[in-house]
Amino acid sequence: MALQKKKSYRVAIMGATGVVGQEMVAVLEEREFPVEELFLFASERSAGSTLSFNGKDLVVQKLTEEVFNGIDIVLGATSSDLSKKFSAHAVKAGAVVIDNSSAFRMEPAVPLVVPEVNGHTLKNHRGIIANPNCSTAQLVMALKPLHDAARIKRVVVTTYQSVSGTGKEAMDELMEQTRALLTFQEVKCTVYPQQIAFNCIVNWDADPDTGYTEEETKIINETKKIMGDEAIRVTATTTRVPVFRSHCESVNIETEKKLLPNEARALLSEFPGVIVMDDPGRKLYPTPLDVVGQDAVYVGRVREDRSVPNGLNLWVVGDNLRKGAALNAVQIAEALIR
Amino acid sequence: MALQKKKSYRVAIMGATGVVGQEMVAVLEEREFPVEELFLFASERSAGSTLSFNGKDLVVQKLTEEVFNGIDIVLGATSSDLSKKFSAHAVKAGAVVIDNSSAFRMEPAVPLVVPEVNGHTLKNHRGIIANPNCSTAQLVMALKPLHDAARIKRVVVTTYQSVSGTGKEAMDELMEQTRALLTFQEVKCTVYPQQIAFNCIVNWDADPDTGYTEEETKIINETKKIMGDEAIRVTATTTRVPVFRSHCESVNIETEKKLLPNEARALLSEFPGVIVMDDPGRKLYPTPLDVVGQDAVYVGRVREDRSVPNGLNLWVVGDNLRKGAALNAVQIAEALIR
Repeated sequence: MALQKKKSYRVAIMGATGVVGQEMVAVLEEREFPVEELFLFASERSAGSTLSFNGKDLVVQKLTEEVFNGIDIVLGATSSDLSKKFSAHAVKAGAVVIDNSSAFRMEPAVPLVVPEVNGHTLKNHRGIIANPNCSTAQLVMALKPLHDAARIKRVVVTTYQSVSGTGKEAMDELMEQTRALLTFQEVKCTVYPQQIAFNCIVNWDADPDTGYTEEETKIINETKKIMGDEAIRVTATTTRVPVFRSHCESVNIETEKKLLPNEARALLSEFPGVIVMDDPGRKLYPTPLDVVGQDAVYVGRVREDRSVPNGLNLWVVGDNLRKGAALNAVQIAEALIR
Repeated sequence: MALQKKKSYRVAIMGATGVVGQEMVAVLEEREFPVEELFLFASERSAGSTLSFNGKDLVVQKLTEEVFNGIDIVLGATSSDLSKKFSAHAVKAGAVVIDNSSAFRMEPAVPLVVPEVNGHTLKNHRGIIANPNCSTAQLVMALKPLHDAARIKRVVVTTYQSVSGTGKEAMDELMEQTRALLTFQEVKCTVYPQQIAFNCIVNWDADPDTGYTEEETKIINETKKIMGDEAIRVTATTTRVPVFRSHCESVNIETEKKLLPNEARALLSEFPGVIVMDDPGRKLYPTPLDVVGQDAVYVGRVREDRSVPNGLNLWVVGDNLRKGAALNAVQIAEALIR
């Protein structure tokens, strides 16, 4: 199913007022996506508010099943439940949906796409294309060039995830808790069950049988699907840290063929969308703060892991709202209209 | 070299005014260590200040080479350089030094001790006993019972370390930077080269050849020495997070014999000094905030890692100033006088 080629497109954002939705508006503008008209949809609560796009204030409209007539591309930034409810209507109305929720990611017929990694799978879409989980998107960007060169056998990934991955309310909660602690007020936990300020916490949706959180399961499954290789073995531990934006990942990999750190750095540097920032002697490696608002995935701390014959440690940092969400979705749209 | 058994001991703390030194004073008091007299030594800058011990204010004295006459036990909480300078004088004066710095840890003749793990090595000391790096201490507490039951072949550890591991100045810096950000003031970086507030940073002492930081190298080497098994393969990635106190570790292990999560939890629960807090359905797992001031090392999120035949993931959290430093040092002293 191909998108009809046009000079410009009628684009809609479902969930436009959330942190990812707002970032999508910004990325469409920044990248000069050929937008004929932009439609912003959100819940009734947010309807009537405005967002600026290309110098104009656009009014957010209530998302209903009937809004999709004449829309070419829908960027989905809602919850999984809302995406399940509305995406089929968008497709029926003739739009292509690029969905940032987890609703369709693991459906075999739905391409799960990071354009630099598996853009070729886009052509098989049937109206819905899934955008990966934020942690997975930055991970596969670092894995792909190494996998192509040396075949990755196993990945052990541990994350340091910022609160913007949970949403605006979580960012407010980190700010409010921090302010409360600094002024000797009571700390309130509303979004997260535990205090996130000056603490490290885990998502509370662990599977009672395996103990893995949904985020961990997503990383494990989505990595294999995007890399197109079910033989890659992956395990993950995900943790939320008191950082507003950008995720860090400590990544340990084992490859079939030996890769020395310098070879890995060279491969990563050549890969589109990856920047190597790795000069320990000059204190150069990426921190979450460094990459806020950046499109690239940054890789540093490339080290040989001598505990196995062909091991490497990597430190992968990306803006979870850019490559981890809005940027990747817009890149998919760009690939579709190319 | 055995410590002469007495009813009570003349104990000195070198570096008494730092965060670890002050915690040593508190731990000696709490555990009712048989102290005949406590001597507090620090740099000239801190001399003259007082610390409370058993209801009395003790005056901190300037540390010199001549202060050790008549002292039975010296607890060292100075930098490695100062320990190298003064420990030999303490030993010459007849004291046993339990040193928290890294000065002597890897010297073959110096026992590096976590009492629950390798207390038996204490008997071979020649006047100096080394206390491990904070991250290593809590790690080996979790590894030991699993190693005894199933032989650990490989460990991949990623840390989330609190700023108190760097010292009081770093705690002040996190507080000041946070306050500055919340009040729109300029952020100053004095202790760390990068902003630590709302960020994740790496120690700036990476080896230019391997890229490993000193902390990472310590974890790798000290783990093998304390576990008494050079065959255990270890790799480490250490990161500083904006948390005041307690370190978290994401630990991936591979064992020779299969251990199911329930078996691992049972083994860990039976091990002295370890508390298993692992009930995901009830949101139970340790966070740094939960374990501040706690003596035990907490283990949660015990999960089977299906990416290898015999893999486990663990989440290990400990108070870096207690088991990671002051408590372990006092426990060594307790073992010496037993």
